Amino acid sequence: MSDRYFQHTFPNGLTLLAEKMAGVQSAAMTLLVNAGVSTDPVDRCGSATVLSDLVLRGAGARDSRQLTDYLDSLGLQRSSSAGVHHSRFGCAALATKVMTGLATYADIVRRPHLPEAGFDAARDLALQGLAGLDDEPRQKLLIKLREWHFPSPYGRNTMGRKEDLEKLTIDLMKVDHTDRYQPHGAILAVAGNIDFATLKSEVEKYFGDWSGRPTEPVKVMPPPGRTHHEDQQSEQTHIGLAYPSIPETSDDYYVVRMATEVLSGGMSGRLFTEIREKRALVYSVWAGYTALKDQGSIMAYAGTSNDRAQATLDCLLSEIHRLSDGVTQPELDRAKIGLKASTIMQGESTSSRCGSIAHDFFVRGRIRTLDEIKNAIDAVTLDRVNDFLKKHLPGNFTIVTVGPKPLNLPT
Amino acid sequence: MSDRYFQHTFPNGLTLLAEKMAGVQSAAMTLLVNAGVSTDPVDRCGSATVLSDLVLRGAGARDSRQLTDYLDSLGLQRSSSAGVHHSRFGCAALATKVMTGLATYADIVRRPHLPEAGFDAARDLALQGLAGLDDEPRQKLLIKLREWHFPSPYGRNTMGRKEDLEKLTIDLMKVDHTDRYQPHGAILAVAGNIDFATLKSEVEKYFGDWSGRPTEPVKVMPPPGRTHHEDQQSEQTHIGLAYPSIPETSDDYYVVRMATEVLSGGMSGRLFTEIREKRALVYSVWAGYTALKDQGSIMAYAGTSNDRAQATLDCLLSEIHRLSDGVTQPELDRAKIGLKASTIMQGESTSSRCGSIAHDFFVRGRIRTLDEIKNAIDAVTLDRVNDFLKKHLPGNFTIVTVGPKPLNLPT
Repeated sequence: MSDRYFQHTFPNGLTLLAEKMAGVQSAAMTLLVNAGVSTDPVDRCGSATVLSDLVLRGAGARDSRQLTDYLDSLGLQRSSSAGVHHSRFGCAALATKVMTGLATYADIVRRPHLPEAGFDAARDLALQGLAGLDDEPRQKLLIKLREWHFPSPYGRNTMGRKEDLEKLTIDLMKVDHTDRYQPHGAILAVAGNIDFATLKSEVEKYFGDWSGRPTEPVKVMPPPGRTHHEDQQSEQTHIGLAYPSIPETSDDYYVVRMATEVLSGGMSGRLFTEIREKRALVYSVWAGYTALKDQGSIMAYAGTSNDRAQATLDCLLSEIHRLSDGVTQPELDRAKIGLKASTIMQGESTSSRCGSIAHDFFVRGRIRTLDEIKNAIDAVTLDRVNDFLKKHLPGNFTIVTVGPKPLNLPT
Repeated sequence: MSDRYFQHTFPNGLTLLAEKMAGVQSAAMTLLVNAGVSTDPVDRCGSATVLSDLVLRGAGARDSRQLTDYLDSLGLQRSSSAGVHHSRFGCAALATKVMTGLATYADIVRRPHLPEAGFDAARDLALQGLAGLDDEPRQKLLIKLREWHFPSPYGRNTMGRKEDLEKLTIDLMKVDHTDRYQPHGAILAVAGNIDFATLKSEVEKYFGDWSGRPTEPVKVMPPPGRTHHEDQQSEQTHIGLAYPSIPETSDDYYVVRMATEVLSGGMSGRLFTEIREKRALVYSVWAGYTALKDQGSIMAYAGTSNDRAQATLDCLLSEIHRLSDGVTQPELDRAKIGLKASTIMQGESTSSRCGSIAHDFFVRGRIRTLDEIKNAIDAVTLDRVNDFLKKHLPGNFTIVTVGPKPLNLPT
């Protein structure tokens, strides 16, 4: 670990990660607590979502309005969301202001007011978000694809479920906050113009005496099936496809990433050139590697007009299968250069880096340095990629469509 | 102009802008040519859109596939689009690779092959993009709002018009390329880890002997009306609203920006707190300042369920009118801090900076330094804001809705 990185786990189980970046005045922070949709209680899917809104409606000495005004008065550009594994609170601003804001983020996760009036509004907004999906068929498709591909509760919609949201009460939210907003396993990552010693002592001051361990009432169940069609009257059909791959911690991780880049990285990616540029079958098509903590997958999407939908699905599957025949040296070279370029670009963004080191720690238990990533990319050879592709044939597909009629699926 | 900025206009009318950024390895480039949808010939709306795709399908010594492969082999993360005033070509990567790519971007704008086969695919994709809008009612609303608010041709949909796209031919594209891809008025901006002298000599080498002046066959016409309802069967109603403001070059520019921040900046913005957080009327609501070269506007959007749509529109209008009563000192302070924080964050991104200096030159004829922006923000006082708001009452609204039924509009 060079002077650039810092990692420390406090006795209460909270891990602080930091990255010092040259030439920036800003800093960005990400705080992950173990309240994701996958740990929502069985019949309360969406609890984490509502909670991640509700904790911001007053905390510590400040009511809802005062809290919002105060954080805006620091110039913090903020975001918050509930994901599969965590609820995430993020901010970015001048580094000194991010440091000042730490005390208030401690209030938010440790001492939220959870007001009853705020609860009604927060749940209403969650229900409206769900209802709005009817106007977003592409987003709906990607949500359905996760539901049908990943085992439950990992495939749950992070926006929650209507029936469950309707069952929530402010008292249930309070119990849920106590159960899951706990330091053990939580991650606080900061990247930018920071001093490690100061950061550590500030975090210790505000989070050090927090204590507890989240409950994890998760029972894993297989997804409902492998294929699904969602009827939607439209001129467009949206197609989603997924198949299992290796986990992110595998030694072959960059081998798979590189193969996926050949399929869909840059503009010379096969899906883009074959399906979009040459055949003009689709306006949008992509494939990418995506992972839960222990499970990797390749997911692909195409959106097209109804009359082109069957040809698009056939072509998409055909390109995925063709990958098993191997990639060429020039394709691999481009994939490497593309991935390294995007690593360099992300290395210059405080928000991107604090998100990356937090993710690294969650998946791998440690920060990967930018040099380590660069070396891992360099170490991928053509033989390794083609050997891997030959041994790991794509299969066991999940296929989901949203549109006016189902397509013919491969048997 | 400090050591950080560089500006030079070549004899052919191409302007080179550059910003040197400390602590980065990357650079980003933006190239603007005067082929925007507003200069599309009268009955060929969408010509710039198809052309911005077609010029990438082979240029100089490389055919379509070779060109794509080559640019990917430099690791260039690329984007291109047709806007109102320009077609824009952008890339970002390691600074040395961006420098290497300059020669190829000269091929693209000066010596594209414009192949007939590529034309069919490029036009098909443009038509598909348009058809896909039916599944994107929010995007459709924002397009319709511009059409009904700005004078034609400035309000044209940058994706083109179906009837016009169908009339295009490869021969018309060739004529259009000759007419509009010209150096006079074009802007090339680079930000990042660069050396001004080297950059200038490279640009001179590849673009210096380019010559010509684009034709601008624009006849300005008023928009078709002030209110419009687009019928779409859905559970959601999308509401767009716009009214005239001062141009970006006005001394009061930051006065208006600050007032708009009070309305809709950060999370303490009035629209967010009143309409979303307190009343939970909408999932998404915002307002912002937007400008063509000579004309500024305030635009606002809200998306909500049909049963809340009328209340949302009424509430949105009421908050906009309430702004005329003035803002408070704490509101102004937060607005200033928020705008300065986002200026600092953008100042650390090469892509953001090269886009900003190109925009500055187009609108103002010169680069604004980050210090100049910061000072202009600081110079805004509460009296100036409230005096401005009293003298410039909102009115002459354009109101557009997309949903199952029209709303009651103010008379």
